[in-house]
Amino acid sequence: MPVNLTPPLAGDLHPVAGVSLGIASAGIKKTGRKDLTLMLLAPGSRVAGTFTQNRFCAAPVVVAKRHLASDTPRALIINTGNANAGTGVEGLNDAEHICRALASWLPCTETEILPFSTGVIMEPLPVDKIVAALPAAIADCKADNWLAAAHAIMTTDIVAKAVSRRIELDGKTVTITGIAKGSGMIHPNMATLLGFIATDAAISLPLLQQLIRHAADESFNCITVDGDTSTNDSFLLIATGVAGNAEIDTQNKEYSLLAAAVVDVARELAQAIIRDGEGATKFIRIQVEGGADRDECRKIAYAIAHSPLVKTAFFASDPNLGRILAAIGYSGVPDLDVQTLQLYLDDVLVAENGGRAANYQEADGQRVMQQQEITVRVVLGRGTADATIWTCDFSYDYVKINAEYRS
Amino acid sequence: MPVNLTPPLAGDLHPVAGVSLGIASAGIKKTGRKDLTLMLLAPGSRVAGTFTQNRFCAAPVVVAKRHLASDTPRALIINTGNANAGTGVEGLNDAEHICRALASWLPCTETEILPFSTGVIMEPLPVDKIVAALPAAIADCKADNWLAAAHAIMTTDIVAKAVSRRIELDGKTVTITGIAKGSGMIHPNMATLLGFIATDAAISLPLLQQLIRHAADESFNCITVDGDTSTNDSFLLIATGVAGNAEIDTQNKEYSLLAAAVVDVARELAQAIIRDGEGATKFIRIQVEGGADRDECRKIAYAIAHSPLVKTAFFASDPNLGRILAAIGYSGVPDLDVQTLQLYLDDVLVAENGGRAANYQEADGQRVMQQQEITVRVVLGRGTADATIWTCDFSYDYVKINAEYRS
Repeated sequence: MPVNLTPPLAGDLHPVAGVSLGIASAGIKKTGRKDLTLMLLAPGSRVAGTFTQNRFCAAPVVVAKRHLASDTPRALIINTGNANAGTGVEGLNDAEHICRALASWLPCTETEILPFSTGVIMEPLPVDKIVAALPAAIADCKADNWLAAAHAIMTTDIVAKAVSRRIELDGKTVTITGIAKGSGMIHPNMATLLGFIATDAAISLPLLQQLIRHAADESFNCITVDGDTSTNDSFLLIATGVAGNAEIDTQNKEYSLLAAAVVDVARELAQAIIRDGEGATKFIRIQVEGGADRDECRKIAYAIAHSPLVKTAFFASDPNLGRILAAIGYSGVPDLDVQTLQLYLDDVLVAENGGRAANYQEADGQRVMQQQEITVRVVLGRGTADATIWTCDFSYDYVKINAEYRS
Repeated sequence: MPVNLTPPLAGDLHPVAGVSLGIASAGIKKTGRKDLTLMLLAPGSRVAGTFTQNRFCAAPVVVAKRHLASDTPRALIINTGNANAGTGVEGLNDAEHICRALASWLPCTETEILPFSTGVIMEPLPVDKIVAALPAAIADCKADNWLAAAHAIMTTDIVAKAVSRRIELDGKTVTITGIAKGSGMIHPNMATLLGFIATDAAISLPLLQQLIRHAADESFNCITVDGDTSTNDSFLLIATGVAGNAEIDTQNKEYSLLAAAVVDVARELAQAIIRDGEGATKFIRIQVEGGADRDECRKIAYAIAHSPLVKTAFFASDPNLGRILAAIGYSGVPDLDVQTLQLYLDDVLVAENGGRAANYQEADGQRVMQQQEITVRVVLGRGTADATIWTCDFSYDYVKINAEYRS
């Protein structure tokens, strides 16, 4: 069950002026549940995107990147149940076919549409089913459909992920609302499986592109469930410019306010993905401080976060913390001096001087391990850099979910 | 249950002239089973070792490396149940204390003894229990004790691992016998948790050192259970020189014969560790061919072998093979062209041209996935290098074993 993750309420999600969303059932999922989401953007909207670094990147990612580079998006079309990844030339044709079909219904061209897919890899996309459901998705479009969209993009997610914030920019109220999905195959490298954040703020495209990289680095690029980088990771940041604030085109105070709110939304969505990680029973924050640079802090944090032995010990609430030392030791920081580092579990000093801390008591470790939320803190004593990532434990249910995924 | 792994029979294990082994119960393990192994070497024996690259390398590893560098070993003392790792200065003192105590009973000095430990990390070594059991281990020493030693070094292993070969070198019969343990925290980087191979062949120390690196690269450095590199990995190769062959001191025909036999023993031990991997139900060979260099082939092979999604699909016998494409895609080979590669499952061509192969049928993938032994073959089409590694699947029992390890 998800860890301290409350389902979002429709009333908490503020519509974003200039964005409307329509949902439909294309019948990709056997259960007949909603699996198609359309997002329409007001003219003049600006869109920035970051995408997976996986070399087997999915067909819709290739097409979305191409369209984003050549045109200004007016619509996003998202299906779940099939990733259209590992599908070769046919997959590219399928993604383009859907954009073309949608353009025939909308006042825009094919290249103003960005396609997204998530689900099983290496299965042909059921194009006809999707095309047939487009009119229903268009007919359903409305501004207050964020919660339905958050549900319609889910795969193995248990809880929908949607976050909303409001801030003031030069006397105008600006809204930032985002949705994301993801539960397994989560170790984003630039973005997560699917994340969409929209604001009605006015901001120039170069600054929007700068902001998405910053927001990704502070959120989706800091999480891992299983170390598997997906073929379909995509994170989009949309600014419709309808709010009426003066367009942000330098890194001024308004940029900082907006950036803080976007990071806040992105981080809450990214953490929600971990709280709802496949089989998760614990939410674990791994904080590495005192490093020579951020890279080595992240290396150590990810070594801990990816260790199946560490993750199963968290699942069992077993303070078998030597496994964390072992992971630090093999993280690949070549000149690491284990004598100078300290390991804390929440406020409990567990290890220092290359071994167990003198005052460490197993009962103290046990107490923290039984919590649902745990901070692992590693103090390196090599410099001033730090990094934080978020992960979950590894349970029977992770194996069950992934062994039975297609059955 | 172990995958196609027959327990060794005492009669199949040839004694090695110049090596005797003694076993005892020191009471480190609660169950009272044998947990202490002594190996005595004839004067003039040569010993080469390779050890873990983990920065939190265990105290006995530090001491064994130091003694090996300064002296010629006459005895090895190995305990299970406690790794003496993450134990700081106290751990080093403990390892040296045991060498000193043993030296007082044997006709050799403290620095002629190599200590080894395996078991829980970050717990103080029960030195007094070990020292008290030394006389019993010495009294038990005999040449045909290899099977008992293979049992006494086990931790979560289900089946003991011991392999023996005989070859002719200049008209003399030469024996090579080895034992190993390991089941979890297996992703060796230079060696595996504990592996000891002895021969009575005469070979110079420089060539013995060359041979151990070669043998490790072809065996223990090609396996992974969970991607966790242990703090205690140690692989020792012993040559007593008692067989009477002319000492091998160049890379001649006799060197090649001996090397082939040592690699054969090391590889069978390494594969036995995978067949007995924690929770394993499948034995999987991952073969990457046509690479620009061996490194990129290994990167791709390990990305597949470490993916929890791939491993759970194997457990479920589910040909959800897009997960293998995803792992290849994120393996970190930056200029990889997914259009030119081919993926085979045994003899079944699964993917090519960036997607599913035209003639691939799910039923064919299903047939192979149901086997207990499976070969994943990736043909890159970039060059002539290749690499093979061995791994196992990821089951409920892996989680169970590691969640309950200390209880």
